[in-house]
Amino acid sequence: MLRTPSTLLAASSEALEEVRAQRPLVHCITNAVTVNFVANTLLAVGASPAMVDVPGEAGPMAEVASAVLINIGTPAADQRVAMLEAAEACARTGRPWVLDPVAVGVLPVRTALARRLLELRPTVIRGNASEIRALAGAGAGGRGVDAAEGAEEALEAARSLAHTSGAVVAISGAVDVVTDGRDVVRIANGSALLTRITGGGCALGGMVSAFAGCHADTLEAVVAACASYAIAAELAAARAGGPGTFAVSLLDALAALTPEQVAAAGSIS
Amino acid sequence: MLRTPSTLLAASSEALEEVRAQRPLVHCITNAVTVNFVANTLLAVGASPAMVDVPGEAGPMAEVASAVLINIGTPAADQRVAMLEAAEACARTGRPWVLDPVAVGVLPVRTALARRLLELRPTVIRGNASEIRALAGAGAGGRGVDAAEGAEEALEAARSLAHTSGAVVAISGAVDVVTDGRDVVRIANGSALLTRITGGGCALGGMVSAFAGCHADTLEAVVAACASYAIAAELAAARAGGPGTFAVSLLDALAALTPEQVAAAGSIS
Amino acid sequence: MLRTPSTLLAASSEALEEVRAQRPLVHCITNAVTVNFVANTLLAVGASPAMVDVPGEAGPMAEVASAVLINIGTPAADQRVAMLEAAEACARTGRPWVLDPVAVGVLPVRTALARRLLELRPTVIRGNASEIRALAGAGAGGRGVDAAEGAEEALEAARSLAHTSGAVVAISGAVDVVTDGRDVVRIANGSALLTRITGGGCALGGMVSAFAGCHADTLEAVVAACASYAIAAELAAARAGGPGTFAVSLLDALAALTPEQVAAAGSIS
Repeated sequence: MLRTPSTLLAASSEALEEVRAQRPLVHCITNAVTVNFVANTLLAVGASPAMVDVPGEAGPMAEVASAVLINIGTPAADQRVAMLEAAEACARTGRPWVLDPVAVGVLPVRTALARRLLELRPTVIRGNASEIRALAGAGAGGRGVDAAEGAEEALEAARSLAHTSGAVVAISGAVDVVTDGRDVVRIANGSALLTRITGGGCALGGMVSAFAGCHADTLEAVVAACASYAIAAELAAARAGGPGTFAVSLLDALAALTPEQVAAAGSIS
Repeated sequence: MLRTPSTLLAASSEALEEVRAQRPLVHCITNAVTVNFVANTLLAVGASPAMVDVPGEAGPMAEVASAVLINIGTPAADQRVAMLEAAEACARTGRPWVLDPVAVGVLPVRTALARRLLELRPTVIRGNASEIRALAGAGAGGRGVDAAEGAEEALEAARSLAHTSGAVVAISGAVDVVTDGRDVVRIANGSALLTRITGGGCALGGMVSAFAGCHADTLEAVVAACASYAIAAELAAARAGGPGTFAVSLLDALAALTPEQVAAAGSIS
Repeated sequence: MLRTPSTLLAASSEALEEVRAQRPLVHCITNAVTVNFVANTLLAVGASPAMVDVPGEAGPMAEVASAVLINIGTPAADQRVAMLEAAEACARTGRPWVLDPVAVGVLPVRTALARRLLELRPTVIRGNASEIRALAGAGAGGRGVDAAEGAEEALEAARSLAHTSGAVVAISGAVDVVTDGRDVVRIANGSALLTRITGGGCALGGMVSAFAGCHADTLEAVVAACASYAIAAELAAARAGGPGTFAVSLLDALAALTPEQVAAAGSIS
């Protein structure tokens, strides 16, 4: 299939419509810092979040979900068990799932966890440049949750990670880069305020899960999620007086975002 | 005692005054997703929240609290121990406590937990229609935290649950329904935006706890909490540009809500 | 060194500039209720938060952080292990760390934990009057997280705690009081709305950590953090319609706060 910016914009617009129509049930096992914001982001865009991270419940929940998000930001012992349970359920049933490898490569517990999760073949991997490079084995992982590098610098790592893992890989940055190992798509929307709130990346992980739970073509789903989120961020930034009002406005903007706005404002190449 | 809409409105207004005057200490053991919003809701309405969920502390905390909230939304192993500890302290000392059985019937760990908690005889049970039906043994529990059914469809289950458990049962929905097994009260205030934020129900569980910790008549306390919360939601919705600003405005509206507004705007039948 | 209100104001202004320039990496092990707000506060003021509370990761994280915050508000078993791990890493490497002894003296698990942490010699202790008195062995600890007493009533306890622990002690209240056991500084800025949101104190603990991670003189760093936070609270309160909008505006105000505003609006004696 030939992908052009205009077919990708049309697909993005369509994918947002699908999220609104299907209201996908997104099972999230995510960090304690931003779990509230991830849930509110999913509700705002029209999905139905279920934050279930207890062993014995994570597997059954994953089996009925449209998609699963696994974010390793605060990997408590029981949550690690739940993550593996959910990822195994996805691997068994073919459900799409998204790995958000927060601070992988920097800290030992999550690094070991991320490697085990990678073996269960996530459908999508979304991280910043440092995380993608660390997961691909090409870098040390930055100094924490911050992106120390630009997305472009991680492109080769992302391509290689896509090849070895079979996942679509999304690198978040001033320009988001998405690749399935072959095609490379860049989304130039967004706002620097996303780096001034906690959960700016985690919430995008939620968005990607929701879109992957609705739209059949995974690369298109990831591009659609990144574009919708980044366009909403632009709209929110225009109304914000700082990071506090920005986070609040972002939820309003996601709820009000129309497929037409995505088609009109998306900057995809 | 004869309950009429006007005596219930007067009691609701009075109960809000009591919360403001007594500033009840509300001990919450609640889910990680919405714990911040529940605490902020309690502070906004004039109560004093204490979020204590560690075994060895939950019992002592419950013994000095005005009321206790137990919300099983993310039932980690240690939290389950703390919940039973607190519920037992309430049963022993006669303190009012509220059970919020999030997603009971859908997932196994919390379903078993809810049954054990039910044996300790909560003062109030607050849930959506699916949860109330599941807890009463009459339904399968919906697909997660969402209400798949209207409150009226769960009325018979609520009545039966009130009889067997001795609790006042509140079913949240577009119209809230509250019953002690005999009387049935409907509160027709509220906003659809409550379903577009996470914690819309959890925060009401906190409100119900605060009111039950102040007002002697439990049915009246629950009606007062539901009415105050739903009226504040109406006021907040009128100022909101979407779910983000709605959640923020709801806290402002709760802080500013007057007993007179409750008496004037309450739609109780 | 002679400290006067005007040298302290100048130092406060300078310390805020240092936070902006150095973007300190602040490792937080903090309670589940307000962890999101603490992270957003740190991002707003210009620091880089890392919320890492898993045993095996807390020590390594502390070793690369500019400063560490340990807040005992929801001390789950694994978090307690992580707190000791991080505090030991700080003791070993000489890194500044801040103890926020939430509800110490009221509840048994955290009280025992706080005593162990105290032996590891925090650089700063920040609490309300009840907490400082309880930690100094002079009081019963209030009824929960609320300050039952004014800061002045805890001054002797704070002085004694500073002497025995070697820490700079900050008592939060309508007027904040900071002492190293010898000098006593009062900061008369702030807003009563800080007591109507959850995390008003926790976020200040984060601020204190960020400033202590940049500014060499600890007493000055603590005064600077308290003054910057309280001035931002005044600015936010002027724009707020209640506690919901206040919390949001506080983040905006912290992001926009200039060293000049601190120098001009600070009320230090």
